[in-house]
Amino acid sequence: MNLDIMTQQSGEWLRGGGPEADIVISSRIRLARNLSSFPFANRASAHQKAEIEHFLRDRLAKFDFLPKLHYLNLATLTPLDRQLLVERQMISRELANTEGPRGVAVSDGETISVMVNEEDHLRLQVLRSGFALDECWQEIDRLDDAIEQKVNYAFSEEFGYLTACPTNVGTGMRSSVMLHLPALVLKKEIEKVFRALQKINLAVRGLYGEGSRASGDFYQISNQVTLGKSETTILAEIRNVIPQIITYERQARQALTRESRHQLQDKIQRAFGTLKSATMMTSEETMDLLSSVRLGVNLNLLEDVDIGAINELFIHTQPAHLQKLVGQSLDGEERNAARARYLRARLRDLGTQLN
Amino acid sequence: MNLDIMTQQSGEWLRGGGPEADIVISSRIRLARNLSSFPFANRASAHQKAEIEHFLRDRLAKFDFLPKLHYLNLATLTPLDRQLLVERQMISRELANTEGPRGVAVSDGETISVMVNEEDHLRLQVLRSGFALDECWQEIDRLDDAIEQKVNYAFSEEFGYLTACPTNVGTGMRSSVMLHLPALVLKKEIEKVFRALQKINLAVRGLYGEGSRASGDFYQISNQVTLGKSETTILAEIRNVIPQIITYERQARQALTRESRHQLQDKIQRAFGTLKSATMMTSEETMDLLSSVRLGVNLNLLEDVDIGAINELFIHTQPAHLQKLVGQSLDGEERNAARARYLRARLRDLGTQLN
Repeated sequence: MNLDIMTQQSGEWLRGGGPEADIVISSRIRLARNLSSFPFANRASAHQKAEIEHFLRDRLAKFDFLPKLHYLNLATLTPLDRQLLVERQMISRELANTEGPRGVAVSDGETISVMVNEEDHLRLQVLRSGFALDECWQEIDRLDDAIEQKVNYAFSEEFGYLTACPTNVGTGMRSSVMLHLPALVLKKEIEKVFRALQKINLAVRGLYGEGSRASGDFYQISNQVTLGKSETTILAEIRNVIPQIITYERQARQALTRESRHQLQDKIQRAFGTLKSATMMTSEETMDLLSSVRLGVNLNLLEDVDIGAINELFIHTQPAHLQKLVGQSLDGEERNAARARYLRARLRDLGTQLN
Repeated sequence: MNLDIMTQQSGEWLRGGGPEADIVISSRIRLARNLSSFPFANRASAHQKAEIEHFLRDRLAKFDFLPKLHYLNLATLTPLDRQLLVERQMISRELANTEGPRGVAVSDGETISVMVNEEDHLRLQVLRSGFALDECWQEIDRLDDAIEQKVNYAFSEEFGYLTACPTNVGTGMRSSVMLHLPALVLKKEIEKVFRALQKINLAVRGLYGEGSRASGDFYQISNQVTLGKSETTILAEIRNVIPQIITYERQARQALTRESRHQLQDKIQRAFGTLKSATMMTSEETMDLLSSVRLGVNLNLLEDVDIGAINELFIHTQPAHLQKLVGQSLDGEERNAARARYLRARLRDLGTQLN
């Protein structure tokens, strides 16, 4: 798999054609799995970790599955390539930054990734555009079964799947949905939503997982509990709450267009104008401005702008993507200049100014 | 004189062709004069003020002078038209807003105005583009002589010209220069310049005179003392200090382009982009953004933008001008929308974006 190609095309999840795509960016399920015949990764010696990686690499490389998986040995990749995979949500920041034998199998279309030697021996992930948790579940269940035919999972009749960290024991499942909630942020109602979600044990994080603040008004909502419930129960809990949040966001958008249409339009047009004219631009500001533009397109306040192109810019303006696109390594200030240049070039012919 | 025409064309002083026009917007001299046969305006009865206005209107209307003067009876003008004259610097805010018989004679090209029944019976003004105090002086001296052939000025051998307020006694002269000092503001050196000017008894004000803060980085520097010095001495004092301030501003511009060229370029391009895309825009923000654009044009950081057009926009986006241009009276929010629409239309085809 040639990583340079990644910057030429986008994963399926990013193109934004899925259900409720104006608000739901993507749905994701991951399963934590471990091999019964090896110690957990945090207990394994360097030699054992190499054995695990070799064992799984061998099986994943020859894996007969559609979509086809491509195995990448992360230890041999540059930090920039690993960062690229983080930005595309194919691997975790932790897997990118640790040392030792580790890898990832990425499918055509980037809907599937299988991380090797992350916190667990295996982390299976299915990622899809829009609100599509059921499709994710069917796909990951199929993937899980197919892998289980090749390896023996660590499993307890009492607890379920055994994992390196007890918070993942049981189903080993985390399901999450990435939402774009700019109107709830603008109307200062987002905290209220979070408090309600925390009460029912759902976690809220930013675009790049734990600890990252919610740049671009993207919020990832996921389940916390993995034990004592079936996969379908866990899935139902999150699946049932998302339509409510979608409704809140839609109501907030309608309220904004009704009560402060002029201010909203001004904010959106200024964001678009700034993206098209700035010559220095941080990643953070880019996310915030693109968020306004994305809202504008979805509310028909910006015409002739392709939402797929805007979605793609969120990822393509991240540091590693940018350096791949430019074809050279850049320091912070150079990146800000390159990012602004890239945005101007991509947006120059997009959008008509309102009269 | 048809005031509607004022919004179609600009006064000579605004077109920006004068000496040092990248920094000096305009030079201005005014003379305070009173008639010997009437009490000062602040002592005159309503009847006497009407007599004064009638007497001077009669003489100014028939005045044989080039450029030709046009007399406007301010009591018969709408508040909007009076505000228009304030924005064009033809009358003071005080003359616009007081009651009673009063007027102004405005010349072709708006280089000359003669206010009637402001604080003094007569306030003569000559306004020119760029750093041109000597030309202003020659013109106003000629105007003063010509008026003195028609009326008797209140004059004392001991004190000189007598005025309603003692601060104007003597020469009755105030000379001022309007400077655009964005680089000194950006480099936070402007306060230092002000303190130096205050030490030598020169006053600093904003674009629209006393009390208005310096929107758009415009600063008006004028003499304070009118008594005990000849006109040429007063003129020399201000004329000699201006080149120094011009030098400071030029040095600050060079330092900015040398030390923080990228930040400066970004600021300028964003200002231009915001002016071209916002759909709501206050007068204050317009001035600040146009100030950046004006600096950008003068530093060749924005190409193909006509400085004359930018100068004009400073005035045309003021409230009264805007309402005249739109042809209807607008409240604050409507003005902000109309201002943004006007700016977008005027700037759409101006300027090329840097690559």
